[in-house]
Amino acid sequence: MQTYAITLDDVKAAARRIEGIAHRTPTFTCATLDQLAGRSLYFKCEQWQRVGAFKFRGACNAVMKLSDADAARGVVTHSSGNHAQALALAAKQRGIPAHIVMPSNATPVKRKAVEGYGANVIECEPTLIAREVTVARVQAQTGAILIPPFNHPDVIAGQGTVALEMLADLPELDAIIAPIGGGGLMAGVTLAAKALKPTIRLFAAEPLNADDAARSFARKEFVPQTDPKTIADGLLTSMGDLTWPVVRDLVEAVITVREDEIVAAMRLTWERAKLLIEPSSAVAVAAVLTPAFRDLPGLKQVGVVLSGGNVNLDRLPW
Amino acid sequence: MQTYAITLDDVKAAARRIEGIAHRTPTFTCATLDQLAGRSLYFKCEQWQRVGAFKFRGACNAVMKLSDADAARGVVTHSSGNHAQALALAAKQRGIPAHIVMPSNATPVKRKAVEGYGANVIECEPTLIAREVTVARVQAQTGAILIPPFNHPDVIAGQGTVALEMLADLPELDAIIAPIGGGGLMAGVTLAAKALKPTIRLFAAEPLNADDAARSFARKEFVPQTDPKTIADGLLTSMGDLTWPVVRDLVEAVITVREDEIVAAMRLTWERAKLLIEPSSAVAVAAVLTPAFRDLPGLKQVGVVLSGGNVNLDRLPW
Repeated sequence: MQTYAITLDDVKAAARRIEGIAHRTPTFTCATLDQLAGRSLYFKCEQWQRVGAFKFRGACNAVMKLSDADAARGVVTHSSGNHAQALALAAKQRGIPAHIVMPSNATPVKRKAVEGYGANVIECEPTLIAREVTVARVQAQTGAILIPPFNHPDVIAGQGTVALEMLADLPELDAIIAPIGGGGLMAGVTLAAKALKPTIRLFAAEPLNADDAARSFARKEFVPQTDPKTIADGLLTSMGDLTWPVVRDLVEAVITVREDEIVAAMRLTWERAKLLIEPSSAVAVAAVLTPAFRDLPGLKQVGVVLSGGNVNLDRLPW
Repeated sequence: MQTYAITLDDVKAAARRIEGIAHRTPTFTCATLDQLAGRSLYFKCEQWQRVGAFKFRGACNAVMKLSDADAARGVVTHSSGNHAQALALAAKQRGIPAHIVMPSNATPVKRKAVEGYGANVIECEPTLIAREVTVARVQAQTGAILIPPFNHPDVIAGQGTVALEMLADLPELDAIIAPIGGGGLMAGVTLAAKALKPTIRLFAAEPLNADDAARSFARKEFVPQTDPKTIADGLLTSMGDLTWPVVRDLVEAVITVREDEIVAAMRLTWERAKLLIEPSSAVAVAAVLTPAFRDLPGLKQVGVVLSGGNVNLDRLPW
């Protein structure tokens, strides 16, 4: 029997660990979007999670699970996005140091947010190599524990708590769709949901311009992402060796969407549902509005994970 | 004893009338805004009301209260804003004609929304005189009943249901603050809240650039609005003879805010609370962040009415 990075018990333990620190987010509906999708949609609103994205769940679980001895060493990661803020806040909650390696081209507002949580920001060249070398140097100097953004069992288990809450609120759901980048959210949600309700169907939503999951899924073989170009800046990375097998085996389909569909779905969600979501969240909304998804039979009630709401309000995509 | 346009019983009757047609909106909190305000804020989220604004409550109550004979004549109003959509949708719900007189400079998207609810849009010159003359003509031609945007007992009673819900959810509130334009929301909320909880304190929030309420309040004499210039386009009108006495007698203070404060509060609410509100709503947020309001003693828990979320996403004010 195939085993995966985590079990339902890990997700339940994560839920207990992050309770009272992470927010339990609400689910919203929108009649207009239901009409456009041809079915009932239930939006899990992670834009109201702490730091404005689901990422806090995984980072928080990983940090809270550390032994006291390990925690005292502090934590480190490299990220220019939501994981940076998530880890910084989780470390602050535990009262331990966080070292966040950020590329020099990260926006000042993001750097300021991370520093606002009391983290130590270390700047590096904006390449993956430079980021990894800098993290290794920080680890060597401080002994800090690396908490990666998605390819880690404790992070995946934390993200899986999204599905626990969705199925507690809405046990009737026929399916859940979530955006996929590295696959931490998708893997956690899939493993938790399938364990709780084996008949539930899982879908991944991906930008066509960063479609490593779709291509990997079609070939049943991992294909890394090269040169992604999408406004869904949370979905640029390739999957990891802990997340890909879950997608390969337990996800029914990867729905890809064009950039114009992402922008239109984002705007529609802002205008009609009055939900302030980031482009990565809009990928899941765009996916349920595609003819391919609309035509799938047997899906009366679909949970849609809105992954976050951190948007640069000075540069909206329309 | 002074009597006003409506009583608590009218508001309770309105609540029964609009139940299941209007949404019962949730209340949200935001730790960052609490910190900036120096107290606990509870945001009543009318951006999620039908048509995206509290206006649907009053229009719906007025339409549903009509006798069958009156309803059959249809309804008419002039508005380029949220009341137009609100009345159009309320009429659609009742299955009666709605005639909406809109100035020729109304944005096409607003006109389209009103037409989308099945209303008959009549264009006129963008002056108050032209609007009123056109309404009178429509009334003469069709026999339709005029439902004005705020200065009407049934409209005021409908808006008052906002306070019923707030105090049902949060009986501990020390105060409620709401934006003031024509005063329909403010009067309804004030009369309902004071009747339910005589110790509660009421505050009006107003743009400094459309400060007829503040000037009237200071002089204890109605001063009409002239030449308002504010991005809070829902708050341009003067109060009416039904709303002004409520403000005069039962509101503790009118807090005015500058245009830059409105824009900053709107952006803050979008960025930190991830709540998509329109400038008129931001006036109330800006007001609770002013030193004048922050310095008021005895206000631990303050309800803030976010009146709506209909924003032109192509022309954001920052």
